[in-house]
Amino acid sequence: MGIDRLKLRWNGWGWIDGPDVLGDKADAVWDWMGKTMGVDPLPSTPAKPLSEIALPEVRLGEDTVAKLKGLLAPERVKTDDYERAFHARGKSYHDLLWLRAGRLDTAPDVVVYPVSGEECLAVVRFAAKENIAVVPFGGGSSVVGGVTAQAGPGQAGVMTVDMTLMNQVLDIDEEALVARVQAGMYGPQIEDALQARGYTLGHYPQSFEFSCLGGWIAPRSAGHQSNKYGKAEEWLVSATVATPQGMWTTAGFPGSAAGPQSRDLVAGSEGILGVISEAEIKIHPVPEVKDYRGYVFTDFAAGVAAAREMMQARVATAMIRLSDKPETFFYNALDSGGAGADGPAQFCVMLVGLEGGKTSVDAALERSRAIIKGHGGIHMGEGLGKKWYAGRFETPYLRDPMMDRGLGVDTLETATRWSNLVHLHEVTSRAIADALEANAARPGARGIVMGHVSHAYADGASLYFTFAFPRALDREIEQWLAIKKAASDAICANGGTISHHHGVGTDHLPWIAQEKGPIGMDALRAVKERLDPAGILNPGKLLA
Amino acid sequence: MGIDRLKLRWNGWGWIDGPDVLGDKADAVWDWMGKTMGVDPLPSTPAKPLSEIALPEVRLGEDTVAKLKGLLAPERVKTDDYERAFHARGKSYHDLLWLRAGRLDTAPDVVVYPVSGEECLAVVRFAAKENIAVVPFGGGSSVVGGVTAQAGPGQAGVMTVDMTLMNQVLDIDEEALVARVQAGMYGPQIEDALQARGYTLGHYPQSFEFSCLGGWIAPRSAGHQSNKYGKAEEWLVSATVATPQGMWTTAGFPGSAAGPQSRDLVAGSEGILGVISEAEIKIHPVPEVKDYRGYVFTDFAAGVAAAREMMQARVATAMIRLSDKPETFFYNALDSGGAGADGPAQFCVMLVGLEGGKTSVDAALERSRAIIKGHGGIHMGEGLGKKWYAGRFETPYLRDPMMDRGLGVDTLETATRWSNLVHLHEVTSRAIADALEANAARPGARGIVMGHVSHAYADGASLYFTFAFPRALDREIEQWLAIKKAASDAICANGGTISHHHGVGTDHLPWIAQEKGPIGMDALRAVKERLDPAGILNPGKLLA
Repeated sequence: MGIDRLKLRWNGWGWIDGPDVLGDKADAVWDWMGKTMGVDPLPSTPAKPLSEIALPEVRLGEDTVAKLKGLLAPERVKTDDYERAFHARGKSYHDLLWLRAGRLDTAPDVVVYPVSGEECLAVVRFAAKENIAVVPFGGGSSVVGGVTAQAGPGQAGVMTVDMTLMNQVLDIDEEALVARVQAGMYGPQIEDALQARGYTLGHYPQSFEFSCLGGWIAPRSAGHQSNKYGKAEEWLVSATVATPQGMWTTAGFPGSAAGPQSRDLVAGSEGILGVISEAEIKIHPVPEVKDYRGYVFTDFAAGVAAAREMMQARVATAMIRLSDKPETFFYNALDSGGAGADGPAQFCVMLVGLEGGKTSVDAALERSRAIIKGHGGIHMGEGLGKKWYAGRFETPYLRDPMMDRGLGVDTLETATRWSNLVHLHEVTSRAIADALEANAARPGARGIVMGHVSHAYADGASLYFTFAFPRALDREIEQWLAIKKAASDAICANGGTISHHHGVGTDHLPWIAQEKGPIGMDALRAVKERLDPAGILNPGKLLA
Repeated sequence: MGIDRLKLRWNGWGWIDGPDVLGDKADAVWDWMGKTMGVDPLPSTPAKPLSEIALPEVRLGEDTVAKLKGLLAPERVKTDDYERAFHARGKSYHDLLWLRAGRLDTAPDVVVYPVSGEECLAVVRFAAKENIAVVPFGGGSSVVGGVTAQAGPGQAGVMTVDMTLMNQVLDIDEEALVARVQAGMYGPQIEDALQARGYTLGHYPQSFEFSCLGGWIAPRSAGHQSNKYGKAEEWLVSATVATPQGMWTTAGFPGSAAGPQSRDLVAGSEGILGVISEAEIKIHPVPEVKDYRGYVFTDFAAGVAAAREMMQARVATAMIRLSDKPETFFYNALDSGGAGADGPAQFCVMLVGLEGGKTSVDAALERSRAIIKGHGGIHMGEGLGKKWYAGRFETPYLRDPMMDRGLGVDTLETATRWSNLVHLHEVTSRAIADALEANAARPGARGIVMGHVSHAYADGASLYFTFAFPRALDREIEQWLAIKKAASDAICANGGTISHHHGVGTDHLPWIAQEKGPIGMDALRAVKERLDPAGILNPGKLLA
């Protein structure tokens, strides 16, 4: 079965009973954070509890709900407050502003839990007939508004299709290393099932514990180790999608020249073409060895050059992650409870992860060390790597306590070519910093910006930014929108993609047409209109 | 400038003054071939010379041609017989049956040679306004009817857009290893220009000398060394396409999550969405070392298992090519002028090509030799590899002299997962053999079938078949259609794609819908209708 949602935070990250990330350094960290951001002491800004929130009326009639219960089963059609609140939005900073304030305008009218492709198709067809918006929902960890339960103009209501009861590995082709998996399987369920047979998908996004296969494919997600295992569109072999026109299973050949590849329309479709019910995916033998270690550069550009050389020389890395000076500094300060945080930010940490057979990991280790050394990087051993690996899913837990203390924190990511990477890093950091200042909560309030390179390719890499700031509590959404706009404008004006692995959702809508151009948008719109003429599928996402 | 077309065979392969593939073994080979196929002596069946062929009337009025001359330049708008004949069809066996018989029903009414993206756009828009079919044409080496100059119902005529004057490398980003190249550049022109700067695209299809960049992208071509350099859709970074709606340049980020990737609609579009005018492509440093060598297996399945293990262990091969017993036997017989060809077919030759830096080639050599040995393969040294490499573009020259002697020869290819590869090889070989027998020219006439594995992936590989047979001279097209249908039906019924790298064109139309399914076809049709509502772009290809 899926995860018990009552054990999850409906308005925050992860388990209610999640890890205490700061531990006994908490007081020191809050003290340091408040001083750094010019807010001392930090205020108390708790989220509104669900018991105090009035949900909007269910817009669908009882007969409609009854028909859905007939299509599926009564216990898999939900209209209670917790289910509706849990499915109202995803997990972006923007979402949390709404959820924590108790603004549940986008709570779905009904949440259904199909258990088969046939049931997915039945509810999609029912929705098309009844003019009800359909929001496909896996773990609900979208950070771009991808699962906001909003209806299109004139639609009768919103049905969220929660896929998490579809959580089985259906087949493993051990010769071809291809598994067929239901789309509602959470990350840990997938890896448990595959690893029990000696295989791994190797897709570990930061949301790994709380996101699902379908939710990885729909926005072209990337796991930490995408250098080795690929982005979702690279490990996707074929997809089965419930559309208003019927079930659509794309071809899954290792290579083909039979026209444009259909699965490439599913990867990135973000629920606007149908509900992904299952997929075939590329799997790998569980790696014999995992080697994660750290290096230090005094110059960000030198680290970038080393990453580039490793990728272009085809050194078999699973991950290269190069923090800029502010990010290195920030995590050191968190670690030390702020000790030493009054010194300057001088270093960039690079983490290199290698996974595979011992021989190939050894070879890649030798080559990566030589290349890094050639660019002035200093080897720091396995400590930094092991530490990152052990805590790699924990950082998101820091956001809720920050938000409880009047702080905001958000992340965004892009990608560009190596020839433009240092420039894009610089202009985007500056645009965010300028916007934080221009939209400061009050005089003296200061935000911080940091970033890292990750997800590298022969031709370029992703850039990931994190920014934290004192919230302007009386205009927190406007404040966020202004910062987001400044960052996104800078990215698009300077040769970056509007998203490398988070997707478009609602938040990146203002920039997608600029990136794809009018003909690219028209092509996508044509497919959308053909497959979903009523426009019921995830309205307001990807295509405005 | 482009290649002087007067030096090329308009109704056959390559240079008029091309290599003499059989040399002084020719008499022995023809003798052996005739005996093997039960036709002794082989008849003389020369092609009809152009001087004896009456071309169809030009359907476009003089005013239309004059307007085109105004849009481009008079000397780049052609209506003479040679140009029309040269552009009537591609280079498939099926095409040659028409061309050699002097059946030029599909000669285009006009051939235009644009020199810029603006000119491509101008002629596409002109054609849309005037209801003239547009056939994009690079080297014209399609073997699936991809460039047949046919009009759609009710269209005023056919304009072939020959791209070969657009043959410049426009830019090289040496940091990102991305080059921007005009689409009409022939293979040798591309490699000459790139290699002069120390780079290579590494895309060497068998048609390399007579095919162009745009013609590689449009049908998702694969070069011999695709294991290392990728299929066209893998090395394509972005494409610029002249459509009736305007110029369309797709995004070219190293990775993105901004909706489905638009370039994936261009790769495989076969000219039905627009004329590809230029593209950004991934390039590589010219490899320091090329190591091609041969191995012998007594069992085809053992060779397949070795290929699979190399791919799944990520041994860095550029090429793995495993001939089945009949193919190994056939090439030995060609080589030896038929000597020893009365013995049984006992061996499968595997060629493994490695390209890259010396260290990595050495490492791959050690690993590949160990894996091959583990599956019973015997190392034969570099002789076989060097020989194949030296003659790798010559085999197509054998077709014309075979056709001059009453023989037919055709190839087709597919791909499937490793778990299905041996089965698909077997059923397809048998289907072709049965069809050759059922459609034999006369009692006693015998065809031969052979195949090889190539273009390997972690999950599977391509299978390439060649078949030769005495032509039924009074019903040669029907004979071919029957064999083609039998092979294609067997492939589609047994888990293969209808094409791995030749494309769909006209010849694979009867099977494409089966492969893509109704919704996949609808999605593609929707894009086509949006971008080309008048249906002028390459009518009758890919979508019937």
